[in-house]
Amino acid sequence: MNRYKCIIAYDGSDYSGYQVQPKKRTVQSQIEAILTKMHKGTSVKISASGRTDAGVHAKGQVIHFDSPLSLPEQKWEMALNSMLPEDISVLSVEKTAPDFHARFDANGKEYRYFLYQSPKRDPFQRKYAFHYPYPLSLEAMREASSYLLGTHDFSSFCSARTEVEDKVRTIETIEIIQEGESISFRFTGNGFLYNMVRILVGTLVEIGSGKRHPEEIVEILEKKDRRYAGKTAPGQGLYLWKVFY
Amino acid sequence: MNRYKCIIAYDGSDYSGYQVQPKKRTVQSQIEAILTKMHKGTSVKISASGRTDAGVHAKGQVIHFDSPLSLPEQKWEMALNSMLPEDISVLSVEKTAPDFHARFDANGKEYRYFLYQSPKRDPFQRKYAFHYPYPLSLEAMREASSYLLGTHDFSSFCSARTEVEDKVRTIETIEIIQEGESISFRFTGNGFLYNMVRILVGTLVEIGSGKRHPEEIVEILEKKDRRYAGKTAPGQGLYLWKVFY
Repeated sequence: MNRYKCIIAYDGSDYSGYQVQPKKRTVQSQIEAILTKMHKGTSVKISASGRTDAGVHAKGQVIHFDSPLSLPEQKWEMALNSMLPEDISVLSVEKTAPDFHARFDANGKEYRYFLYQSPKRDPFQRKYAFHYPYPLSLEAMREASSYLLGTHDFSSFCSARTEVEDKVRTIETIEIIQEGESISFRFTGNGFLYNMVRILVGTLVEIGSGKRHPEEIVEILEKKDRRYAGKTAPGQGLYLWKVFY
Repeated sequence: MNRYKCIIAYDGSDYSGYQVQPKKRTVQSQIEAILTKMHKGTSVKISASGRTDAGVHAKGQVIHFDSPLSLPEQKWEMALNSMLPEDISVLSVEKTAPDFHARFDANGKEYRYFLYQSPKRDPFQRKYAFHYPYPLSLEAMREASSYLLGTHDFSSFCSARTEVEDKVRTIETIEIIQEGESISFRFTGNGFLYNMVRILVGTLVEIGSGKRHPEEIVEILEKKDRRYAGKTAPGQGLYLWKVFY
């Protein structure tokens, strides 16, 4: 058996998320179907660094799988890309150590969230960014970000539907970058809870709009209760950008 | 009756082009249905600066229509945008002269064509640019462009399916701009024939790839025969960018 590590990108618009669900079009089921076909019907399962939700995109998701085939890396990449639908692309394939694990070996991730701040709707952004028509204070959002950096219990910024018990995570960096009407939020950290980036962005936007003060972040963190944070920002603005090993 | 001029943008991905066709989803039929609803069932027809094909986009298409309603311009814009699907956006509404005509008064247009030149597929570009995986010489394409500038009979760069008789047009400018893996072709001129921009780009790409010499443009123009030009580049890379009056 050989273990392969792949970096993949996908447009999540037409998927019910990453993970296999009965009767739904998911990224995992598309890739597993192609691999199973390449293995003449023998089922091949893949493992990812983590799930992404419906409509969420990936520029650098990482998966691994095992195969008795020992094709050169270039050949794997070409074969997979020739069979995958156009909204998934394999960016690289690498033969890796037999004990490499896309999820358990990940020691950090970068997520980016794109918002376009304009009174006009842009039909080209509707699936790729969150449309926010009102003014936003970058200064207020950057001040709020400073309270989020470092190691905290992020229970307030985690969907109540999660099963994870330990909600302590470390956010290394938060950058908020404006380019014309586009505002991108870039988060790196050792791990992110379910819906965490979307709730962080939703809360930062409420601060940027003036509805809340930047210092409220301190209180929200202390409460350890989802109800104190802001709304969950929509999925189509979110990109799993990079996984660190 | 009031005549209104609107600038609209649309993502053409999910449309069978601009113009009404039986049982097809088209941009014109979407807008006319909304206007007819606003006029309590009285049919309202719109006229555009010109058609766009299936999958072709618009950043600045212009249409006009007549209405007995005299809403303020802002109200028209809000009402239309609230009812239109998310892949069409009304950028502006202006009350105009009763004899203004979106098509006959246009005295120039700008089209842009986007290509991404990369060995890797990009799932985010598949509906918005033409993927070309091989190297291209910008120098050769720019030299070829210089032979296209000015007033010529563009019969060789026009779909054989056209009904237009006079195929003389003037191209004012052609700019070819590379930004990272993206190459944009920007054309301005007094008018463009059916499929003209896509055939121009298809031919320029054949020149950029080294399959043809830049000077062949002169011969292709002289032949006045579609068969001498290059392939028609795919529709998803094309944007009607601006209409001049």
